[in-house]
Amino acid sequence: MTAPRYDVVAIGNAIVDVIAHADDAFLGRHDMHKGGMMLIDKDRAAVLYESMGPGIESSGGSAANTVAGLASLGARAAFVGKVADDQLGRIFRHDITAIGAHYDTAPLNGQAGNDALDKSTARCLILVTPDGQRTMNTYLGACTALGPDDIDEALFASGLITYIEGYLWDEPRAKDAIVKAAAAAREAGRKVALTLSDSFCVDRHRETFIELTSGFVNLLFANEAEILSLYQTEDFDEALARVKGHADIAAITRSEKGSVVLAGDEVITVPAEPVEKVVDTTGAGDLYAAGFLRGLTSGHALADCARMGHVCAAEIISHFGPRPEVASLADLVSERMGRAA
Amino acid sequence: MTAPRYDVVAIGNAIVDVIAHADDAFLGRHDMHKGGMMLIDKDRAAVLYESMGPGIESSGGSAANTVAGLASLGARAAFVGKVADDQLGRIFRHDITAIGAHYDTAPLNGQAGNDALDKSTARCLILVTPDGQRTMNTYLGACTALGPDDIDEALFASGLITYIEGYLWDEPRAKDAIVKAAAAAREAGRKVALTLSDSFCVDRHRETFIELTSGFVNLLFANEAEILSLYQTEDFDEALARVKGHADIAAITRSEKGSVVLAGDEVITVPAEPVEKVVDTTGAGDLYAAGFLRGLTSGHALADCARMGHVCAAEIISHFGPRPEVASLADLVSERMGRAA
Repeated sequence: MTAPRYDVVAIGNAIVDVIAHADDAFLGRHDMHKGGMMLIDKDRAAVLYESMGPGIESSGGSAANTVAGLASLGARAAFVGKVADDQLGRIFRHDITAIGAHYDTAPLNGQAGNDALDKSTARCLILVTPDGQRTMNTYLGACTALGPDDIDEALFASGLITYIEGYLWDEPRAKDAIVKAAAAAREAGRKVALTLSDSFCVDRHRETFIELTSGFVNLLFANEAEILSLYQTEDFDEALARVKGHADIAAITRSEKGSVVLAGDEVITVPAEPVEKVVDTTGAGDLYAAGFLRGLTSGHALADCARMGHVCAAEIISHFGPRPEVASLADLVSERMGRAA
Repeated sequence: MTAPRYDVVAIGNAIVDVIAHADDAFLGRHDMHKGGMMLIDKDRAAVLYESMGPGIESSGGSAANTVAGLASLGARAAFVGKVADDQLGRIFRHDITAIGAHYDTAPLNGQAGNDALDKSTARCLILVTPDGQRTMNTYLGACTALGPDDIDEALFASGLITYIEGYLWDEPRAKDAIVKAAAAAREAGRKVALTLSDSFCVDRHRETFIELTSGFVNLLFANEAEILSLYQTEDFDEALARVKGHADIAAITRSEKGSVVLAGDEVITVPAEPVEKVVDTTGAGDLYAAGFLRGLTSGHALADCARMGHVCAAEIISHFGPRPEVASLADLVSERMGRAA
């Protein structure tokens, strides 16, 4: 087994977020479930954008946010995901490489993205309510073109951990890409991680996700709502009991209640980091995963991995947008955790 | 004289800002003057973007920020400026109309914006240093196509105040547009306001600006550096003496020292609003102008106009980006100023 070139190689949707304030009445008028992610088609994307307030744009995408966090933490991270050859695609590419991650997925070419939403870079219209919660509406655009041809098997073989975004199961061609990536990783003796993405996503793909977590997934990330949805229970302890013995490690986040890490018979409960004011929860789970993975790939104990996750999540929710605003998450984590990190 | 449809009709560059953190060494390596605005060509824009860290995108442009602020303050405001028919242009259009301003300048058509920077919507690469100061690098793109054909004389005749951005003098064709707009405004008995934009801009157009302020400009906005540059003096009192008797009203901002308003023989000094932490000074002057103009067009005393300007500026510098993040600047001003506003 050759030495890994990357700590984490992630595959996910390459998205630019458009983030605006909205009140609860706006969500009601547009039939949105607060805190969830809805897939929208281009007509709805156009209508919704028209009715939204002014926004800011930031590169996003769940696994891509995790990769950006990992890079800011000093980890060697790579991302695979599809943008179009358009302005938003170039912004996405710039942001993820500028923070230090490897990203060379070919953009979708052709009549891309300028005059219509067809084939343009994916965007997620995010409404942030006064309570800091985000409600997401994703138009997948170019993401739907991700396929097996975009998977460089050597890249996935060269990463300690392959990290897969659950949202990818919403795209038929992406599944083949995931299978190819995960197979390359496992063949090289690497670990595979899965994030369940959101509870509605779990609803759409429950059987597949249960199969995966009891099969080739070594490391599972989920929040409370997702794990409850996965096992169709309202009892958190029952959900924990169900996940036990499946993935080698499961890290379950519970917002302000912190997180629970399961590993074999171990159950580790870690408190959340205090946050002065929750401005926007977008990216909280993604950055928890970044901190956790950074800890894991640099040999930290599981409790410290979770603490690192909470420090990163606390930074993200204290400002608008899903990418770190501090110059270096590594410095922030060192400062918060003392010499341990 | 018919009743005005707008409180303020503004003309300026239509720009999308790309805002990233940088340290002082970065500014040094790229020969930037901290706090200033440099015009850059497309090659430098490409090189600079490549070397910048990850950013967030926000609609910007000096006069456009003022218009957004005015709309958020409840004023009737309109903007004239040129974008391309591309993704960033559509973002600019969305943001300024979504906040409640009128904007219908035709976008630059043709082979616009997708594959190259040529003719694409203007962008300003903004580096924010740890002290909260912003250093701007503007690629004007589609803005350079603004011309007299974009001026609807009836629009300018219908606004109480025509507000002109000094930066426009950097574009030969825009001058003809300004002349046409200002003539229409004056013919209808309206007032004309000018902002000097920045001290380097004043350097480039000193004679024109002196001529304008002693001619058709009724209301002058400037900061300390700009007014010193205008009269080529290092003595603030001397600069004040020079501007006196020119424009009917001059409002000069002095960062944390507040502002000085001159009107005839009156000299009014107004303190700045306290700010907990200066995050990013981008848009401070633009939002001061918004608050001031809102006060003026709704019949407030000059001291209150300046106070309203400082409240708006304080909101802008307490977060990343040049557009208000509060749901309503009008509510913020009411709260800070009591029933007076």
